Amino acid sequence: MTQWIWMNGQTIPMDQARIGVEDRGFQFADGVYEVIRVYEGQPFALNAHLARLWNSAAGIRLNLTIAADELAAAIRKFIELGGVREGMIYLQATRGVAPRNHAIPEGVQPTLLFYSRPLEPMAAPGQVGVSLISVEDERWKRCWVKSIALLPNVLAKTAAIEAGADEAVFVDGGVMQSGVITECCASNFFAVMNGALVTHPVGARVLPGITRALLLDLARGQNIPVQERPLTLAQAKGADEVFISSTVREINFVHAWDGVRIADGRPGPVTLSLHRALHGRIREECPMG
Amino acid sequence: MTQWIWMNGQTIPMDQARIGVEDRGFQFADGVYEVIRVYEGQPFALNAHLARLWNSAAGIRLNLTIAADELAAAIRKFIELGGVREGMIYLQATRGVAPRNHAIPEGVQPTLLFYSRPLEPMAAPGQVGVSLISVEDERWKRCWVKSIALLPNVLAKTAAIEAGADEAVFVDGGVMQSGVITECCASNFFAVMNGALVTHPVGARVLPGITRALLLDLARGQNIPVQERPLTLAQAKGADEVFISSTVREINFVHAWDGVRIADGRPGPVTLSLHRALHGRIREECPMG
Repeated sequence: MTQWIWMNGQTIPMDQARIGVEDRGFQFADGVYEVIRVYEGQPFALNAHLARLWNSAAGIRLNLTIAADELAAAIRKFIELGGVREGMIYLQATRGVAPRNHAIPEGVQPTLLFYSRPLEPMAAPGQVGVSLISVEDERWKRCWVKSIALLPNVLAKTAAIEAGADEAVFVDGGVMQSGVITECCASNFFAVMNGALVTHPVGARVLPGITRALLLDLARGQNIPVQERPLTLAQAKGADEVFISSTVREINFVHAWDGVRIADGRPGPVTLSLHRALHGRIREECPMG
Repeated sequence: MTQWIWMNGQTIPMDQARIGVEDRGFQFADGVYEVIRVYEGQPFALNAHLARLWNSAAGIRLNLTIAADELAAAIRKFIELGGVREGMIYLQATRGVAPRNHAIPEGVQPTLLFYSRPLEPMAAPGQVGVSLISVEDERWKRCWVKSIALLPNVLAKTAAIEAGADEAVFVDGGVMQSGVITECCASNFFAVMNGALVTHPVGARVLPGITRALLLDLARGQNIPVQERPLTLAQAKGADEVFISSTVREINFVHAWDGVRIADGRPGPVTLSLHRALHGRIREECPMG
């Protein structure tokens, strides 16, 4: 089956898509991206993802030359024509092609593209648990920008896999020093402590996750106290429940961390309740067809 | 005139070169690079550049599937066939094409490419001065890897240009706090203080510059004391001479920094002496044809 890609306004077969060698996405990581979940043939939280894309682009001073609603329409059309039922849209914008030079060039047309990948339909809350390993947070200090400069994340994720774990959690200030938990390789980090939902504030060190923001909203709706504050590694490991969230993962409870079982290795009540509420929100926006 | 590129063993026209959308260099900044200067049709310090390429690759666990001497031969042949007299070779290696997933994939062929760009012949020592601005060092902590995750450098360089300066110098710990000078956007930083040559040690924060290493060697040959130690911003601004070095720049003296004139705005004697020695070394390796 032909894999299609939308690129600068045209839908073409993936194997005909050509990125220029001097695309600044390839030579400078000069770009930003989004991953959007599709449920039942509908993109979930599309407007929030596009708003973040524009924020990320502004963070690297990239002017997208398309209107957000035009891009949204192109994505919806692509999903419909491609018959995507359960999957994701991967969307990337780079500065475009220019002779190699660090400084941002003027008058260059950005490269904008997206394509879809299939995913399994969503699993019932509490079905998927993950194990974490701690790694030092060596990333740059503008993590609120969802940039393609992901090499630190690649190395951390690979370290996790090699340690037999599923995901790496970044510790700012060092693992041995019990530094501060910021977020994971490709997900946000949450702890439930004394009935409150605790997560690091977004900003220099933490991406404003779309699922993260939804979960804080849903928690408030359930009268669960929300605390956006740093936790040390030692504090977080003593939490009653630990989970991670992302667009693709939704919520995964954490059953082990650095080889030690967490919270009996089972999903806790707050984790389950929030995941059920998230599914409710998804079903409202993407009703079963 | 056709622009050529060497890509995975084949020399093809640049406009026919195609980077795959899922090349990990484009989606994850999962790659490393080198810039090699060509003088009089000869690559300068080629072995040192290739040794660093292999070190950088090891730093991101990228296995290059070509032998260094085979790559060196291909570069020399490319320079010869292309008639490159004064210029540079831009060389990049990425993890290759794989379905998007953070973890390093197995069994994927790296993407390896290089091409040339013309440059002006070298200017006489002391002819080119530059102005600097200070920016906070927000980069990741493995700067000894010459990775393509250059977005922080892009933003810093652009800030320099917009401030009317030529290059940005990174300050670890903050500019207002007079943190430590590490290096510049695309060059190493040197100060001459009480007759000694001072520069930050290489490692987490500083790339092992090829020209940097040569200059330390040449300084020792001239009995100039070499001190690899951190300097604060305030200390460095009080230096007798300030200069930056890179493969493309060789040595540029610094005449202004954050809008203030440095060392009377002229190249100092140690700067000039080292630049002359560097030219001597270049002429030994790349004799005039």
